[in-house]
Amino acid sequence: MDKKEYIKSKIRDIENFPKEGIIFKDITPLLMDPKGVEYVVDLLVNNLHGQQVDKVVGMESRGFFFGMLLAQRLGAGFVPVRKKGKLPYKTLSQTYDLEYGQDVLEIHEDAINPGEKILIHDDILATGGTAEAVVKLVEHLGGTIVQLDFLMELGFLKGREKLKGHPVSSIL
Amino acid sequence: MDKKEYIKSKIRDIENFPKEGIIFKDITPLLMDPKGVEYVVDLLVNNLHGQQVDKVVGMESRGFFFGMLLAQRLGAGFVPVRKKGKLPYKTLSQTYDLEYGQDVLEIHEDAINPGEKILIHDDILATGGTAEAVVKLVEHLGGTIVQLDFLMELGFLKGREKLKGHPVSSIL
Repeated sequence: MDKKEYIKSKIRDIENFPKEGIIFKDITPLLMDPKGVEYVVDLLVNNLHGQQVDKVVGMESRGFFFGMLLAQRLGAGFVPVRKKGKLPYKTLSQTYDLEYGQDVLEIHEDAINPGEKILIHDDILATGGTAEAVVKLVEHLGGTIVQLDFLMELGFLKGREKLKGHPVSSIL
Repeated sequence: MDKKEYIKSKIRDIENFPKEGIIFKDITPLLMDPKGVEYVVDLLVNNLHGQQVDKVVGMESRGFFFGMLLAQRLGAGFVPVRKKGKLPYKTLSQTYDLEYGQDVLEIHEDAINPGEKILIHDDILATGGTAEAVVKLVEHLGGTIVQLDFLMELGFLKGREKLKGHPVSSIL
């Protein structure tokens, strides 16, 4: 089995979560499998094709799992983007649209220095609303986005359209 | 500077967060520093003194940062404990006390097999309420707790008293 197939075999579909009619991609069996976890990091790094990265930015909470491993493998720093009110220092905020209503993401103001090369990571690219908000936060701080690198992409939700002008990669 | 001193130098005090009178330990400067991150994993592993671990259990969200790295270094699986309603599969729940009111933590029912050797990790041991809840979840699933291994311990909050009977370690 190649690495992609192996990773796929460790992700399970949960029907009707978080609500009726949705099929949720559960990565917890993958997290329990150290070989699968290593493969994910291998393939996320491959997607970069050797480009240099100063910091990996990962979204709360599922972007933290592989984001930290990815940063460490690349010798880069890790920057968490969190929900409103969770980061203790001075923050920059970005509102984004949910299916019903809005939510707010925050990043520390001192997390990125102008000109730093940034890799944005999350587990899933769905509608792209979250990723678009993170792009805005990173650019507002002067970071240069090298790539958005996901574990999975739900292509039918057309998240890439919200991220035009930025390289987007996904393992699955 | 030794590893502990180096790690300490990357943790910053934020006064009056999340509320008046509290000094919050902000680990985000540490996360941005790959050398500091590696030192944390080194010392968390040292605390184990070579004991074997099958799975690392980490608490949402800050326990995910080093928990994944620790699991990968040990060749172990990672199991997230999350807030109520976040885990998609069948869960076991545990209520625990907050300063005012209560909260609920959950673990997947199939996350631990009876007899597996478990390391519990979080960034901070404070009052021990969260850690005590995780101990109960792990034991209910039949896991054997090898150690609770923290980055930091706020000794004056006496968290260890809630965890009696289990080995507790902390880097700082």
